[in-house]
Amino acid sequence: MSQGTDDVRLAVVLVSGGLDSATVLAYALSRGWNCHALSFDYGQRHRSELDAAVRVARTLGASSQRRIRIDFGAIGGSALTDSTIVVPERAAGEAPESNVIPPTYVPARNTVFLAMALGYAEAIGARDLFIGVNAVDYSGYPDCRPAFIQAFENLAQVATRIGVEGGRFKVHAPLIKMSKAEIIRCGIRLGVDYSRTVSCYQADAGGAACGRCDACHLRRQGFQDAGVPDPTRYAPGASNR
Amino acid sequence: MSQGTDDVRLAVVLVSGGLDSATVLAYALSRGWNCHALSFDYGQRHRSELDAAVRVARTLGASSQRRIRIDFGAIGGSALTDSTIVVPERAAGEAPESNVIPPTYVPARNTVFLAMALGYAEAIGARDLFIGVNAVDYSGYPDCRPAFIQAFENLAQVATRIGVEGGRFKVHAPLIKMSKAEIIRCGIRLGVDYSRTVSCYQADAGGAACGRCDACHLRRQGFQDAGVPDPTRYAPGASNR
Repeated sequence: MSQGTDDVRLAVVLVSGGLDSATVLAYALSRGWNCHALSFDYGQRHRSELDAAVRVARTLGASSQRRIRIDFGAIGGSALTDSTIVVPERAAGEAPESNVIPPTYVPARNTVFLAMALGYAEAIGARDLFIGVNAVDYSGYPDCRPAFIQAFENLAQVATRIGVEGGRFKVHAPLIKMSKAEIIRCGIRLGVDYSRTVSCYQADAGGAACGRCDACHLRRQGFQDAGVPDPTRYAPGASNR
Repeated sequence: MSQGTDDVRLAVVLVSGGLDSATVLAYALSRGWNCHALSFDYGQRHRSELDAAVRVARTLGASSQRRIRIDFGAIGGSALTDSTIVVPERAAGEAPESNVIPPTYVPARNTVFLAMALGYAEAIGARDLFIGVNAVDYSGYPDCRPAFIQAFENLAQVATRIGVEGGRFKVHAPLIKMSKAEIIRCGIRLGVDYSRTVSCYQADAGGAACGRCDACHLRRQGFQDAGVPDPTRYAPGASNR
C-alpha cells in the first residue's frame, strides 16, 4: 500500500461485479487511472457477484482488488440483505411501478460504500473515487442521483485529513446520465466482456440470472436497445425474453 | 424492529463504550428519546470498549444495543486498526503536537459510522442520530467538527428514501462545543457511571487504561478540571498522574 503518497493518478473504483461498475473500471483504466478496485461483502443475496468482481478486476487490469466485509444484514430493511423480504419479479413487458422506491433499496448503501472508499483513498493517498451509479435506467434509488454525488463530495472535503489540508476529493460517476444501452456500447468499445458480470439480484451460486428481477429486466432491455446479443447466462427455467 | 414506523421519538445513538458517547446516550434518554444504541467492531485495538458499550447501553437504558462488524483493518492507514503503526504516548504535562492530525485518526471513520447509523435509522423509521463528537478537547480529527456534522446532514437528505420523501434527518452532536470537564459534569448530573466506560486507545482485555495515550490524557485532564475523582481503572504500571 503506497501510504501517504500523493499520486494524482491513483483512483479507488467501486466494483460490484455488475455491468455498470465493470464499465466504469474499463473507463477509468482507459483514461490512464491507476485503479484500485473495492468490493463489498454486505450479506447480499447475489453472492456470485463477488466472484464476478474478482474476475472483472483481474481481467480488465485493476492494480489491486480488495473485498471489505460490512454487516448490512444487521440493520435489515432491504430485500437484498433480509431473506424474509421478497425480491419483486415481473414478466417481460410488464412495467415497474413508477415513482416507487423498491424493496431492493438497501438503506444508505452507497453512502456507506463511498465512505469506505473515501477512507481507503485517504489511506493510499488517492483523491479520486469512481462509482457506477446511473440515474436513467435505474431502479429509483435515491443514492444514484447527481445530488447525492455532489453532497458526498462536499462531505468528503470536511470529513478527511486530505480535505482539511486543502486537497480536493472528486467522485466520478461517468455513467450517471447514460442509458443502459449507452453504457453497454461504451463498455464494448472499451473491451468489457459482459459475460463475466453478474447483475441479477438473485443470481444462483454459479452466477446464472433469474430473468425476472428489476436488474435482469434493465440489463436485458439494455442489450436489446444497444443492438448487441445478450451474453447473460440465465438459470434453467428463467424467463429470458 | 419497528420497520416503516414513523415515530419521531426514535433515535439511533452511536455508543462506542467511551466517556463521550455514554454521556450522549444519557443526554438523549433524559430528553425522552427512545434510543437504539449502535456500536462498531471495526478491528480496533481497544476491543474492551465493545464490552463497555454493552454495559453502558444496558445500564443507562437503551431500548436495544446492536453491534456491526466493519472491516476497517482491510483499508489500513491508522494506528487504531493497523498494529504496525504505533499509538503515540506522552508523559503527563507534555503537550500534544498542535495542528497535527495524529496517527490514531481512522480515515473516514465517523463518515462510515454515521452512514451505517443512517441506514439503520431508515430501516427502523427513525430520523434522529446522536453522536458524541467534540471539537474542543479532542484529538484534532477532521470528522469531529461542526462543518462535518452539517455536511453529513445535507448528504442524508439526498441519500435516503425518507429524505426524498420529504422527511428531515437530524444529526445531534450535543457535546460538540463542550470541554471534557463540562461533558463529565453533564454526565454525572445524568447519572453516568464513568467507571463502566473505556476511553484508552490501547486498553487491555479487561478495560484497564494505559495512562499515556491521547485519549487517556484528555480523559484524566477532564476529571481534574471537573473537580471529580477519576474512576478510571489503570493497568498495573500505567502512568496515571
